[in-house]
Amino acid sequence: MPRLAYLGPEGTFTEEALRLLEPDAERLPCANVTAALNAARGGEADGAVVPLENSLEGAITTTLDEFAWGEPLLITAELLLPVRFSLLARPGTELPHIKRVYTHPAAITQCRAYVARELPDAVVVSAPSTAAAAQEVALPGSPYDAAIAARIAGEHYGLVELAGDIGDRSDTVTRFVRVSRPGPLPEPTGSDRTTLVVFLADDHPGALLEMLTEFSVRGVNLSRIESRPTGDGIGRYFFHFDFEGHVADARVGEAIAGLHRICGEVRFLGSYPRADGVAPQIKRGTADGEFAEAGEWLARVRAGQV
Amino acid sequence: MPRLAYLGPEGTFTEEALRLLEPDAERLPCANVTAALNAARGGEADGAVVPLENSLEGAITTTLDEFAWGEPLLITAELLLPVRFSLLARPGTELPHIKRVYTHPAAITQCRAYVARELPDAVVVSAPSTAAAAQEVALPGSPYDAAIAARIAGEHYGLVELAGDIGDRSDTVTRFVRVSRPGPLPEPTGSDRTTLVVFLADDHPGALLEMLTEFSVRGVNLSRIESRPTGDGIGRYFFHFDFEGHVADARVGEAIAGLHRICGEVRFLGSYPRADGVAPQIKRGTADGEFAEAGEWLARVRAGQV
Amino acid sequence: MPRLAYLGPEGTFTEEALRLLEPDAERLPCANVTAALNAARGGEADGAVVPLENSLEGAITTTLDEFAWGEPLLITAELLLPVRFSLLARPGTELPHIKRVYTHPAAITQCRAYVARELPDAVVVSAPSTAAAAQEVALPGSPYDAAIAARIAGEHYGLVELAGDIGDRSDTVTRFVRVSRPGPLPEPTGSDRTTLVVFLADDHPGALLEMLTEFSVRGVNLSRIESRPTGDGIGRYFFHFDFEGHVADARVGEAIAGLHRICGEVRFLGSYPRADGVAPQIKRGTADGEFAEAGEWLARVRAGQV
Amino acid sequence: MPRLAYLGPEGTFTEEALRLLEPDAERLPCANVTAALNAARGGEADGAVVPLENSLEGAITTTLDEFAWGEPLLITAELLLPVRFSLLARPGTELPHIKRVYTHPAAITQCRAYVARELPDAVVVSAPSTAAAAQEVALPGSPYDAAIAARIAGEHYGLVELAGDIGDRSDTVTRFVRVSRPGPLPEPTGSDRTTLVVFLADDHPGALLEMLTEFSVRGVNLSRIESRPTGDGIGRYFFHFDFEGHVADARVGEAIAGLHRICGEVRFLGSYPRADGVAPQIKRGTADGEFAEAGEWLARVRAGQV
Repeated sequence: MPRLAYLGPEGTFTEEALRLLEPDAERLPCANVTAALNAARGGEADGAVVPLENSLEGAITTTLDEFAWGEPLLITAELLLPVRFSLLARPGTELPHIKRVYTHPAAITQCRAYVARELPDAVVVSAPSTAAAAQEVALPGSPYDAAIAARIAGEHYGLVELAGDIGDRSDTVTRFVRVSRPGPLPEPTGSDRTTLVVFLADDHPGALLEMLTEFSVRGVNLSRIESRPTGDGIGRYFFHFDFEGHVADARVGEAIAGLHRICGEVRFLGSYPRADGVAPQIKRGTADGEFAEAGEWLARVRAGQV
Repeated sequence: MPRLAYLGPEGTFTEEALRLLEPDAERLPCANVTAALNAARGGEADGAVVPLENSLEGAITTTLDEFAWGEPLLITAELLLPVRFSLLARPGTELPHIKRVYTHPAAITQCRAYVARELPDAVVVSAPSTAAAAQEVALPGSPYDAAIAARIAGEHYGLVELAGDIGDRSDTVTRFVRVSRPGPLPEPTGSDRTTLVVFLADDHPGALLEMLTEFSVRGVNLSRIESRPTGDGIGRYFFHFDFEGHVADARVGEAIAGLHRICGEVRFLGSYPRADGVAPQIKRGTADGEFAEAGEWLARVRAGQV
Repeated sequence: MPRLAYLGPEGTFTEEALRLLEPDAERLPCANVTAALNAARGGEADGAVVPLENSLEGAITTTLDEFAWGEPLLITAELLLPVRFSLLARPGTELPHIKRVYTHPAAITQCRAYVARELPDAVVVSAPSTAAAAQEVALPGSPYDAAIAARIAGEHYGLVELAGDIGDRSDTVTRFVRVSRPGPLPEPTGSDRTTLVVFLADDHPGALLEMLTEFSVRGVNLSRIESRPTGDGIGRYFFHFDFEGHVADARVGEAIAGLHRICGEVRFLGSYPRADGVAPQIKRGTADGEFAEAGEWLARVRAGQV
Repeated sequence: MPRLAYLGPEGTFTEEALRLLEPDAERLPCANVTAALNAARGGEADGAVVPLENSLEGAITTTLDEFAWGEPLLITAELLLPVRFSLLARPGTELPHIKRVYTHPAAITQCRAYVARELPDAVVVSAPSTAAAAQEVALPGSPYDAAIAARIAGEHYGLVELAGDIGDRSDTVTRFVRVSRPGPLPEPTGSDRTTLVVFLADDHPGALLEMLTEFSVRGVNLSRIESRPTGDGIGRYFFHFDFEGHVADARVGEAIAGLHRICGEVRFLGSYPRADGVAPQIKRGTADGEFAEAGEWLARVRAGQV
């Protein structure tokens, strides 16, 4: 039974993601993303589950920066978790009683319409996390009447769900990843994703275009690009890339070897099955068999067998 | 005397930026970036000053998203402000007395070495902003002995600077912009920057490469790219671009008209003098005179005068 | 009634092309391509018809070089003429009598199978042109029994067609163009072609890729590229391009103005209706209306109306 | 002592090239390029020397088409031969006697100024080749008084050089290649050239740009591109490419394997030392060592050793 660290406390969306990814794992809640990743790095846990990006809020920059700068880890799985907020209260509390609501600022933003409609007179106060809000509301003497949090937080802290799925949008999603210490990669499945961090060798005009060309010329489709500051002043960035395919695929391998040649540093963050199961469109001439055939042809040419 | 809204409260780095950009402006502190921009949008202020990115923390995503989705505003100036943290205390407090320090989490991260060395026994507590921390510390009965904040915050709240420039890195910089309601653009200076937001028409493979090619083929150099989620699910992004030159420049105009043709929506966020005063290298064939000459040649060709 | 010079003598495939292009024109046969073009340049004729390329032999390099270096002319029409060879003899000659055949080397190559099968014992001798061969065979004392030439040559010189369409391939085609002195261009038809000559400014690596990018970024499809030596040593070339569209089209105009900016010299050779009548696929964002709309948007942006 | 076929008859520029390339070879003059290449193919000769292009006339299309369509041969050497025309006559002939000059049309064009100045009253008649002209002039009863040909033709046929280097341009050059039946390639020298023929898989817009990108992305510089008709109608072409480097170079190998994957057919025509001895500028990231290092990095990544 693996032991997995995650962004705690108990009752976070991350815990929900972990339970879906690894129902049988032992769970180790950590205070923040760095602590969860360090637990995996140091061996206290066998791996970790952390959020990478959210369809409304964007990248979780702490995660990106940890992956770029910290001790190496490999992503071995991803999960897309719909973000469903519940209104949670101590047993016995009813909707009309609720005057003070406690939750994370992102939830405040994302549940604005529900609160305005159903709790027009309530004051909403910022909490460090939705799970922490639920934890606080569960205390008998809490100044707050309700929390907005994941349903799982209610289960943990003994709160009742007064309303479910109260977000303004029903399609908000957070992408979580499971990471492990470096080791054998997940096998290619035909529907894989690869994640990289790339530091430029020198920040010349056209450097980004050159990087993208290394992908496009081998028919590798990008699915995400994020720029992050290197810390060396405004205008100096490094890049996170997600793209279709597994590093074991010939086209992916040649593309990232190309990046490795022209860039300052390429850090491989993993190849793993796509959560959406979509298989990539493989452009003519870029399938593994075509790479193999071309390699054999090249060998013959080099031997003068034309 | 213009009236400018800014990210308050008094004593923030944003106030410092505003004072450098517009020493004589009347200053209107606002609770957050959105409020400051809304003050400018609504006419309560003539403009606003807000942070756009930091060389350690990266983009200020609230600012990016406000520029992309909110009522249009134009950037008319930028400023690069070195981030210098001061240790501020009530008069009479001395270094050995300091047991509890209050500041924003970013300052906690960035002043880690100083605190470990000079205040090894102090507890550091998170505040909503560095200026709010100073404001709190200035209260006679505050539970905190010192704040880490901008020197300007000490001046505002009557605190004494016990130590200056206590950040671990001396080269951290925040980029601020001044925005106004739409109107005549700043004149080109020969050292300008232009900022855009671009939404894809359809998210096909190679869409980003196509956008970058619209710039590169006209010799326009990108200086920043940020992807942000559209809100419509993981894998759907829009882009912020900064690039060299002024929209009045022929090469810039043709490039962004090209983007406008192939993309879903292009939102122009302004052309304004670069804070660093660097003039771009203009690639052969892309100067205004060369565009004008080519236009005359084309007119002759179309008239059959070859 | 226009007077058109052409590559003579009477009875050439070029005459056939001219008659199809301009049935009512007065025809002025000339000794070679240069003479025909000079007749048009000097005013002796109103224009000229010359071959540009053949689907088996390739470019007619004299024509390419005349267009590149000579006094400017504009292509105003093109024609694709199937090349059909006939075996022509003096009246009374029958197939078994034919011992000596006279024709141009290209016809020798292209009618090899027929001659081997039907005239296995005949000697085939090289003539300067197929029409000259027919002219010679028509002389009563000619040492030759038959010519291979265009049927039209038989009509001119009083020869009888013993066999028609005797080429090994039935799909050989020659492309002819009609040229005029510079003047108003043919109107766009929606199915046009444009021809250019481009001299590089400096022959750096990637120069050709840059030129092709000027086309591709505006959705202009090339249909032909020919390199020709500049005369300044091996490795120095200039280029002929044919591409879809009319110079009056916005995308074509912007593309060739781009070439004009980055190249040493661009010589426009004309925009004219395509002989095959095929309308181009217009890539999203590159239609005239989209260019116009983008231009209006850019004007508003430059005026600060966002 | 190798036996080399060449484009004859004796006294051609090709013979001169052969003697410079292989001073000790036995020489087998052939009637035309095809015959010379067939002698090499069939084993009658160990190889052949043929012209490939001329700095004024351009490509020798027969050679290009033989290389593309005929039984495979490999280029093993190249030579750049300055084209120097001599005025050659039978012993005893003096300049004022010369009334009829015999030579190849290309020589007529290239010696126009000399003839106009020194032989203003002479008639110049077209010959099948310069060497054939010299051969004819050497006959006692020849109707011609002089030939314009290579000096070597005078030596062969016993003619006297009345004037040397009489071309209008002194810098005209012909590029010759030596070919052999397929076998081990010449070793890389650091200053090599590679020649290919490429047939498109399907003639879609942008196909040429894609091919050039396969080269440019690996830092391989093209030095020549020629389009030739496939024979299947106007608008259908295949391509000859010359580029810097040897197929044993990693960057060249990967580039042509890329072409092989995306194109219909790639025919390798050889890697051989450049006649000019110029070493290529190797772009950052494309040296053999950098490819090897990237390959090792990729192997580690695939093994999960990050």
